[in-house]
Amino acid sequence: MRKKYKYRSNCPINFTQEILGDKWSMLIIRDLMFAGKRHYGEFLKSDEKISTNILADRLGKLEHSELISKTIDKNNLSKNIYSLTSKGIDLMPILIEMISWGLNNNDKTMVPPEFLKGLQTDKIKFMKELKRAVSKAHGV
Amino acid sequence: MRKKYKYRSNCPINFTQEILGDKWSMLIIRDLMFAGKRHYGEFLKSDEKISTNILADRLGKLEHSELISKTIDKNNLSKNIYSLTSKGIDLMPILIEMISWGLNNNDKTMVPPEFLKGLQTDKIKFMKELKRAVSKAHGV
Repeated sequence: MRKKYKYRSNCPINFTQEILGDKWSMLIIRDLMFAGKRHYGEFLKSDEKISTNILADRLGKLEHSELISKTIDKNNLSKNIYSLTSKGIDLMPILIEMISWGLNNNDKTMVPPEFLKGLQTDKIKFMKELKRAVSKAHGV
Repeated sequence: MRKKYKYRSNCPINFTQEILGDKWSMLIIRDLMFAGKRHYGEFLKSDEKISTNILADRLGKLEHSELISKTIDKNNLSKNIYSLTSKGIDLMPILIEMISWGLNNNDKTMVPPEFLKGLQTDKIKFMKELKRAVSKAHGV
């Protein structure tokens, strides 16, 4: 049974931040959404070097918030595979806007060239196609 | 002199989260951007009940990251007035997408009716007008 949780206010930005307002959760969503990572060990290998205890904590919270789900990997029964739910996939516009803002405000940041091209050419079309591909990959 | 700071990676999402990845910073940006709040005491009164020490810390960090600036209020020389910089105002699309996601995923969240109408009718036009108004109010 889900624990009844009272949010600090009825503001939708606050709701988003209560779920995702930390330095790591969005990176896990990013890895699932854009980097094709699906396994615990893959998240550990990302450049930001998340520690295993923080990763376990954040995966649990994201699962509790129903942004991701965890199942046994059919291709390797000793492993869990993590998937985005449709609620998690719907975060895509937030992440895309974070990418745009980051690129505009820190010239040390970068994304793969084909990703940048998609963003700059037709953001709405690019996101639509990306959403379709991610939904398919995550069985949503 | 600004301290040289090394980010955890060259990912633009990570950059955004290193600056804004906590449960409070975005709420201060929200208050400045959408609620017309400009003074320390006003931020304290928001529904989420930020504590004065966290508020002081986050204002300092947002100023250091050049998302906001602090000046003496010409109408009340004993008070500081906080303003969004253009870099801060450029966060608007991220906040707007957080609002959309929050409203779609928690039916307890709400925004003022005229705001909702603007979002639902023509988001791009609405944001353009809002950006113009906020820029004017913050002298950007």
